[in-house]
Amino acid sequence: MKAIFAHGAKDLRLSDCAVDPVGPTDVRIRMERGGICGSDLHYFNHGGFGTVRLKEPMVLGHEVAGRVAEVGAEVTNVKVGDLVAVSPSRPCGGCVECHRGLPNECLNMRFYGSAMPFPHIQGAFRQDITVMASQCHVANDLTAGEAAMAEPLSVALHAVRRAGQMMGARVLVTGCGPIGLLAILAARRAGAAKIIATDISDNSLAMAAKVGADVTLNTMTNPDALAPFAVGKGTVDVLFECSGAAPALAGAIPALRPRGVIVQLGLSGDMSLPMMQITAKELELRGSFRFHEEFAVAVKLMGAGLIDVKPLITHEFAFDDFLTAFETANDRTQAIKVQLAFDA
Amino acid sequence: MKAIFAHGAKDLRLSDCAVDPVGPTDVRIRMERGGICGSDLHYFNHGGFGTVRLKEPMVLGHEVAGRVAEVGAEVTNVKVGDLVAVSPSRPCGGCVECHRGLPNECLNMRFYGSAMPFPHIQGAFRQDITVMASQCHVANDLTAGEAAMAEPLSVALHAVRRAGQMMGARVLVTGCGPIGLLAILAARRAGAAKIIATDISDNSLAMAAKVGADVTLNTMTNPDALAPFAVGKGTVDVLFECSGAAPALAGAIPALRPRGVIVQLGLSGDMSLPMMQITAKELELRGSFRFHEEFAVAVKLMGAGLIDVKPLITHEFAFDDFLTAFETANDRTQAIKVQLAFDA
Amino acid sequence: MKAIFAHGAKDLRLSDCAVDPVGPTDVRIRMERGGICGSDLHYFNHGGFGTVRLKEPMVLGHEVAGRVAEVGAEVTNVKVGDLVAVSPSRPCGGCVECHRGLPNECLNMRFYGSAMPFPHIQGAFRQDITVMASQCHVANDLTAGEAAMAEPLSVALHAVRRAGQMMGARVLVTGCGPIGLLAILAARRAGAAKIIATDISDNSLAMAAKVGADVTLNTMTNPDALAPFAVGKGTVDVLFECSGAAPALAGAIPALRPRGVIVQLGLSGDMSLPMMQITAKELELRGSFRFHEEFAVAVKLMGAGLIDVKPLITHEFAFDDFLTAFETANDRTQAIKVQLAFDA
Amino acid sequence: MKAIFAHGAKDLRLSDCAVDPVGPTDVRIRMERGGICGSDLHYFNHGGFGTVRLKEPMVLGHEVAGRVAEVGAEVTNVKVGDLVAVSPSRPCGGCVECHRGLPNECLNMRFYGSAMPFPHIQGAFRQDITVMASQCHVANDLTAGEAAMAEPLSVALHAVRRAGQMMGARVLVTGCGPIGLLAILAARRAGAAKIIATDISDNSLAMAAKVGADVTLNTMTNPDALAPFAVGKGTVDVLFECSGAAPALAGAIPALRPRGVIVQLGLSGDMSLPMMQITAKELELRGSFRFHEEFAVAVKLMGAGLIDVKPLITHEFAFDDFLTAFETANDRTQAIKVQLAFDA
Repeated sequence: MKAIFAHGAKDLRLSDCAVDPVGPTDVRIRMERGGICGSDLHYFNHGGFGTVRLKEPMVLGHEVAGRVAEVGAEVTNVKVGDLVAVSPSRPCGGCVECHRGLPNECLNMRFYGSAMPFPHIQGAFRQDITVMASQCHVANDLTAGEAAMAEPLSVALHAVRRAGQMMGARVLVTGCGPIGLLAILAARRAGAAKIIATDISDNSLAMAAKVGADVTLNTMTNPDALAPFAVGKGTVDVLFECSGAAPALAGAIPALRPRGVIVQLGLSGDMSLPMMQITAKELELRGSFRFHEEFAVAVKLMGAGLIDVKPLITHEFAFDDFLTAFETANDRTQAIKVQLAFDA
Repeated sequence: MKAIFAHGAKDLRLSDCAVDPVGPTDVRIRMERGGICGSDLHYFNHGGFGTVRLKEPMVLGHEVAGRVAEVGAEVTNVKVGDLVAVSPSRPCGGCVECHRGLPNECLNMRFYGSAMPFPHIQGAFRQDITVMASQCHVANDLTAGEAAMAEPLSVALHAVRRAGQMMGARVLVTGCGPIGLLAILAARRAGAAKIIATDISDNSLAMAAKVGADVTLNTMTNPDALAPFAVGKGTVDVLFECSGAAPALAGAIPALRPRGVIVQLGLSGDMSLPMMQITAKELELRGSFRFHEEFAVAVKLMGAGLIDVKPLITHEFAFDDFLTAFETANDRTQAIKVQLAFDA
Repeated sequence: MKAIFAHGAKDLRLSDCAVDPVGPTDVRIRMERGGICGSDLHYFNHGGFGTVRLKEPMVLGHEVAGRVAEVGAEVTNVKVGDLVAVSPSRPCGGCVECHRGLPNECLNMRFYGSAMPFPHIQGAFRQDITVMASQCHVANDLTAGEAAMAEPLSVALHAVRRAGQMMGARVLVTGCGPIGLLAILAARRAGAAKIIATDISDNSLAMAAKVGADVTLNTMTNPDALAPFAVGKGTVDVLFECSGAAPALAGAIPALRPRGVIVQLGLSGDMSLPMMQITAKELELRGSFRFHEEFAVAVKLMGAGLIDVKPLITHEFAFDDFLTAFETANDRTQAIKVQLAFDA
Repeated sequence: MKAIFAHGAKDLRLSDCAVDPVGPTDVRIRMERGGICGSDLHYFNHGGFGTVRLKEPMVLGHEVAGRVAEVGAEVTNVKVGDLVAVSPSRPCGGCVECHRGLPNECLNMRFYGSAMPFPHIQGAFRQDITVMASQCHVANDLTAGEAAMAEPLSVALHAVRRAGQMMGARVLVTGCGPIGLLAILAARRAGAAKIIATDISDNSLAMAAKVGADVTLNTMTNPDALAPFAVGKGTVDVLFECSGAAPALAGAIPALRPRGVIVQLGLSGDMSLPMMQITAKELELRGSFRFHEEFAVAVKLMGAGLIDVKPLITHEFAFDDFLTAFETANDRTQAIKVQLAFDA
């Protein structure tokens, strides 16, 4: 069985990897699709991000779906042959954060494909994987590609929950990469009446319009594009900041009305923020990190036809063509979500 | 100009009625459609409800839409010829509740067609009406029938906001009259993943399924229908109680999970509630009354195709056939929303 | 070692009882004080309440404090000789409610002295008890009597948290038994600016004034006592309903302002509620049940002198005089909190 | 009648000033005390702050109390001779923010002593002033000095409300100038169990301890002072950032637990924030700006002895000795709140 290991910047290798034994509450998955995420790209391009660096070879990948090949004796939620979306989130269930109802903040989290802890948590870009049955969510009414979108969609759904109710709201999304686009879909599903999207790439903005943004604005070519929304003390109720770029956030703040909510999704380094406006307009800036129960919600909403992620899957490559896949994913002028086919 | 006056129980009369002059911030509307609401039916059937009784003849009606016939000198938001949904809500803007951001609780509210204050607030079932421009919301992309649904839809949208965010929630709606059906549409728009609807009429439940309920249950023919949702301490996140019937509310409470939210929409008299369960499961029972800014949201969401109320409009009658219209509206086995055509 | 067993209505017996062995994370306590609670009185007077009935002899008591006599090998939070308040709350830590951050709603709760499950959960009115170290909170700066008040104080603190922030609020407390009095103390600690208390006993009201109520009203002798607070749509922000009596709740509702919050603390049977007012004023009725992390808070706040419960401890009896103690506790005209001295 | 005008940096002048006529809903106040605030100092030291600059002479001052000298015909809330705290906040009552329940965000706010709008809003450091009766809050049970503290106390109370409920919380206050010290008092009043205060001045920290901080830390002499509170993912529930200094905020963030709340009080320019931690710990940063209904609360809580601000009033000068007063207020090594006596 093969897996895609990152050994360092620009050093991915397809290597043999053992599959773990299947315990009584475990499930063995034959992988079908795996989506390349921004953090996978950081490991690929730079060998890490911020202070997080690869210290040993690590299997990448955490947006995956596959077919159940074997189930443990006590497993009841899935059966052999089911297509399942596999959640990469494995909180411990016993720490103080898990007991506060915040499993995404688990002190002992083992999230697939993360170099934050050492030894690193190995990821899921592999042909076979043994997982806990509780990570598996049946997705027989979806394609494997859609099922593999459950993970990034969960991130967007979690952000929408962090924002609070938004029925009829005016929503701004800054940054229309995959997470920003999913935030548009999620905000619409949550009742947003008007969605404005900004980016510096026309390709991304075209996709934003395609998935439902009412207004798309290129803030590179038109730095004052948001001015009409900044009249009075501002008119936007909720901002989903998905770019991780300080100018995007700072540039959006004048458009937020008093008590407006900013949900910060994109991970980034330090940012210089206009605190005078944040204070004087009593804005609320809320971090949003990963997800937990939203994973099941994502599978359900896609299965019921309530959210359609298919337009976002722009590319698919056989898993042994992983280098082309990663290079394509790097090119935001053409790619949104690039997936690897492990059953190719 | 004619208007439909209620003089007492079963005593409606079409009589002449003067149209008010058009001031600088006013608009004169030539009425097109008016929906019959539950409170109109109460005045028609019983001459009032609870302690609220007709003490003088009162024009009924508050779910209306029409075409702008004349605008005051300072009006900018609408122009002659526009189809507009007209909000019946006229808070004073100056009382303590208005200044708390609760105009629906205005101490001096003049809501169309209400016998709560005396003199009564005259309603909008009339051929011509002069309103404040701020009550008018352009609805040129809707039919007049849809536009006249903005009012009851606003009630449902307000209830959804009262519930808080519900992305991925399991929602129960008890009572599938017009408000219950609109609550289904609104809850779905707000991200509910699963919607269960109960009623004692199969006709209403068929309509609930048509507008998107995932499960419909007749609690008359099957009193234990909700038992599967009451496993453990319950599984339902949010209940919209739209029946105003104590057995519906009491019967739903075992299905609510701890900290579940009950939004009480239907106006009713006293109800006997199972306080032990409410206390021990820490449920939250929240009243929801009328609406305010949700009216504009309703028009926007319908206009954008994000909520479709058309299936609910089951009957239309010429306004001078008002008696047939009211009798039809009384018959829940066949009617959902009955509208009067004032331009017929 | 002796314990106080309830065998049925008016049938308490002091009998021998084995002490459990001390495991590595356990602590053995030599009991000092135990307070008699309303539910203890229900078992004493009626052999249970509602559908909860004694089906086997059960040790009563869950408001206790004592001195550490022995500690398990892995215990670090207490040492031999410490005075500790012992929390009676023992959630499982592994169920869905525990993982939602709601341990007070634990599906497998083993709360001391409760006949809800069968076999019943044995209580803490005994000379020696072995508990988990995590139940123990060091209270060396308190008297044993005060430490034994941590449990009912926790109930009141939990209710205050359920109410949300109340800085400057006008608070109404209906029912001035021990929980109502503690709610007064807790509401004041949370920033309430004005506290109104009602009861039907002048003795209780005198104590309410003593612990800080600004206004005390006897609603038996003056049924309209709350009328001055019901002007307009009402003036009270938060109601703590501690009587479990429907007339108290119904009588308080006109005094609540729109969007006012009712926290229902007292366990009761069904209650008839004025739903029209609840709906039309958009009130929020929230159940409040037991506590969890508030136990540690209670010990801290008493230890820091920020809440003083001493005036509430009106009687103390040697534990073998338990009958006098229970009969005294039954007499609300003279007793507030009656405690048993196990070290007498 | 004399008033203290700021003409520019270091250019204060005592000049004649007309008193406005007393309309039917107005009150004329003979001023007694006025406290010097940080913004007054900015005008004194720099002629403004940020982009806000003096463009014409402006009377300073907005923390004032005085005695009622004359009342308009329709005034009922105060009478001649009353000592009143005068709120400097004058929202319009008619704009969209006022109608959202956010008068502190009023689009037409006329807040005393502010150079943000032009013409500037003249302030209240004057011997006589005519105000709206609604600005006056009777404070006969307070000294004039305490009454003049109602304004800064309101700022702290508003911040506490912005934080949400904090019963039993661990609270951190960064910056122990007058606002930070009042935040300590307010957080304690709201139920904080443990209050940690940081500053770079030992004088300020000594005062913090005096008004109730449990732990005081000098982050200048010990930059790692907060490390013990940053164990795990952090242990602090709520941070009141009162310094307006980026290092204070950035240094406090590791101590905040997941979902911790930061209330930003101090106005400041741009700040560089550690967004990775804010996002990954899902912190909430909330601006807090001025106050409105908290002014009445401040007067009530002081009057009831529930908050004691007297220790903060360190200096008092006759109003014609204003230069000494302002220079003293500039010296944080000795002064906390400096007040001017207008009746001297």
